[in-house]
Amino acid sequence: MTDGWANSGLDLHLAIDPRRKTASLEDAVRAAIRDGRLPAGTRLPASRSLARDLGIARNSVAEAYSRLVAEGWLEARVGSGTSVADRSFLPVAEAAPQAERALRLDLRGGIPDVSGFPRTAWAAAVRTALAQAPGAALGYQDLRGAQRAREALAGYLARAMGVWASPDDLVIAPGFGGVLRLVALALVARGARRIAIEEYGHALHREILSDAGLQPVPLPVDGEGAVVDLLDDLDVDGALLTPAHQFPTGVALSAARRTAVVRWCERTGAIVIEDDYDGEFRFDRRAIGALQALAPQQVVYAGTASKALAPAIGLGWGVLPRELMVPVLEQRRLAGAATGAIAELALALFIETGGYDRTVRSSRLRYRARREHVDGVLRQRMPDARLTGMAAGLQSLLELPDGVDEVEVSARAAALGLRIEGLRSYRADAVGAPSAGRRSATFVSHRPAMVVGFGAPPESRFEESVAAMIAAIGAAR
Amino acid sequence: MTDGWANSGLDLHLAIDPRRKTASLEDAVRAAIRDGRLPAGTRLPASRSLARDLGIARNSVAEAYSRLVAEGWLEARVGSGTSVADRSFLPVAEAAPQAERALRLDLRGGIPDVSGFPRTAWAAAVRTALAQAPGAALGYQDLRGAQRAREALAGYLARAMGVWASPDDLVIAPGFGGVLRLVALALVARGARRIAIEEYGHALHREILSDAGLQPVPLPVDGEGAVVDLLDDLDVDGALLTPAHQFPTGVALSAARRTAVVRWCERTGAIVIEDDYDGEFRFDRRAIGALQALAPQQVVYAGTASKALAPAIGLGWGVLPRELMVPVLEQRRLAGAATGAIAELALALFIETGGYDRTVRSSRLRYRARREHVDGVLRQRMPDARLTGMAAGLQSLLELPDGVDEVEVSARAAALGLRIEGLRSYRADAVGAPSAGRRSATFVSHRPAMVVGFGAPPESRFEESVAAMIAAIGAAR
Repeated sequence: MTDGWANSGLDLHLAIDPRRKTASLEDAVRAAIRDGRLPAGTRLPASRSLARDLGIARNSVAEAYSRLVAEGWLEARVGSGTSVADRSFLPVAEAAPQAERALRLDLRGGIPDVSGFPRTAWAAAVRTALAQAPGAALGYQDLRGAQRAREALAGYLARAMGVWASPDDLVIAPGFGGVLRLVALALVARGARRIAIEEYGHALHREILSDAGLQPVPLPVDGEGAVVDLLDDLDVDGALLTPAHQFPTGVALSAARRTAVVRWCERTGAIVIEDDYDGEFRFDRRAIGALQALAPQQVVYAGTASKALAPAIGLGWGVLPRELMVPVLEQRRLAGAATGAIAELALALFIETGGYDRTVRSSRLRYRARREHVDGVLRQRMPDARLTGMAAGLQSLLELPDGVDEVEVSARAAALGLRIEGLRSYRADAVGAPSAGRRSATFVSHRPAMVVGFGAPPESRFEESVAAMIAAIGAAR
Repeated sequence: MTDGWANSGLDLHLAIDPRRKTASLEDAVRAAIRDGRLPAGTRLPASRSLARDLGIARNSVAEAYSRLVAEGWLEARVGSGTSVADRSFLPVAEAAPQAERALRLDLRGGIPDVSGFPRTAWAAAVRTALAQAPGAALGYQDLRGAQRAREALAGYLARAMGVWASPDDLVIAPGFGGVLRLVALALVARGARRIAIEEYGHALHREILSDAGLQPVPLPVDGEGAVVDLLDDLDVDGALLTPAHQFPTGVALSAARRTAVVRWCERTGAIVIEDDYDGEFRFDRRAIGALQALAPQQVVYAGTASKALAPAIGLGWGVLPRELMVPVLEQRRLAGAATGAIAELALALFIETGGYDRTVRSSRLRYRARREHVDGVLRQRMPDARLTGMAAGLQSLLELPDGVDEVEVSARAAALGLRIEGLRSYRADAVGAPSAGRRSATFVSHRPAMVVGFGAPPESRFEESVAAMIAAIGAAR
């Protein structure tokens, strides 16, 4: 690197990469203008003297200047040389609205650890995907997403999750929430009005349903998962379920209930949305396949790359019953947006070359190790608390010792710099008085418990977060 | 490459790259299973004999086998070796619904030429962006999009388009349609019910508005652009306009009308959505800046990377009046989806390093050359037809010779394998009888004209497409 410019009368240090002198001079000047080191009107050194100072060819400097003039960064006037262009129409940066102050430690559920995201491998997948893509793949295309990506995903979901998936029935959307929104709007367009949800879950999912025009009706959750036997009584047109690993209680839907829910939707024509948010992270070998495979024409299978890879990928997917594809794509068209084919094709390549499997495997090991750490600390330091639910996924439930209150633990934890939430904070609000002839489900009582996420903190802060949690529970006794 | 497997009793050709033997053996087996060359139950050669056949180390084969077993592609049973796993739950591929048969030649408007998309440079931007991104950038984040991307975009829009842009006021969404949808929903949430649109435009944009709950009310377009003087009479809460380059007539909004529309929205509190779909492609130097800069608190400036780079990027942006940011982000939250930060950060890097400007410049030259070609052919072969509108952007209007009908030209063109549309096909449908006290605008009559897009055909087919168009017009006389 060559440091320079000081000799030309400007007190600036421009880092010039000797292998790409012109481009890095351009970058350096742009950066200096952007961050205010080179205010409008500043006269730049003559290309000859700058070239001498930087030890690069005069032509390189002249080329950089002329490009920067063409782009509007610099102005060249006959007789007065080159100066920084007036950009006074740029508003002065104002203070951003105060962002929520981030606590330093974090054990919230549903948040993946992205520290293991294989950046280099993903970049290589993008490069190869772009090199292989036919020209048409970069233009406007199929609303379902790129064909090759749907093929790769269908193969993966069949192989790893037991989903009954054909590329034709698959739609790629920006994340699970995007799929949920599209399906909800499509159901409403077909006349649906009420949808069963699990008593515990993401508030955002309930809001998405409700904003789309579906009233969420809570279904109790017990040790066998959602109490689907009550579905007949709720007068609903569908259900949103997490059968593989209830969020956030961690319970799997029992075999009897799986059969019952399939019979219910086949009998009534209702649609079940199977949210398989962390299906990749079963620590044991996956014992049972997707619920969707039992009734592919009644169940939407929905998943996301946000948990297995990272939210920054921006992709999720739904495998749809045939009759839902057209109404879902109509909603997608009206949403005015498709996902970017470059990311889709990179995902296809990442799956085809085994990168997806490798990433999932290494994250799974990390989450399992973290669960075992929590388990070990509890046994040693707080034997009257325990982790419940399957030894799987992104989070577990920690049943609190007798008499300890969830809200109190959260408050004590916050004082120690730790974000952690109680089970009750995931509970659906009461949905208003049920209409005549409709009865609400009666709810099962749950012991007070904290939701312990294994993904939110980076590796370096996990043990400290767990220690803070134990201290918070101790202080709340 | 080593071809093999035949000697092991399996008639398969697996292409093994000698530099990455294990990985390419895995790829080859996966591909063979996927495309049916290796059906379920097929017994694989013992690792020793396959290693000998392929001339690679036995360990490499064993490693590949064990990875494929772990991924579920193969099964290993004690005493019976390794075989292809049963994937019978995979549905047999069914015939895809017959896609619309693509005509070979295409001169439709609004479609960018992606053949110049700098694939290598974009892949490099993704790689560098990923290498530089802090860990938090890969997780869940700001609903407006990545900070660095908003900074780069705000700088670019200020510099190149004269937009009054701060990163805080910018929201990144999946394409222009995505921005339009979010803004429309936010306006409806604030009580808006009717929005003025231009008489000619994209049917999809009218549908997005209408689906969001805003009734589109057409405004006539003449030689000075949209007749905004009529806005006061239309009882609308906002307007969607293409001031820089009316789509598809190609007219710029006159200075007097720019002033009038700004006064109107400042006086009434209405919101203007400025669709700058091809602002980058002014062939002359941009004479006037964005309308938005005249009234940043009343005008939404919306643009997209789909035209300047490629739809496959999947990103668009809106610069919003302050008071619209919160309602727009609430709509975005309820849409359950954010754009992928990896693409956003790559875009930031692409802008910062001048790649965006370079790509736009080269596309602009290509579109200009194509326009000049059409102009030249018309002068020579059909002097009573002419291109109108600014010499700019992705398409121009071709006024037909007297007595030639648009629909007839489209039909004759289709018979020659060319897609091309008449101006009338972009016209807003009548929007029903106006309510009492509201009057519809009276429309200016336009000469029959074809919309000639410069971006849809690849370079190799452009001249042939133009020749087909001339032939179609000749046949329709």
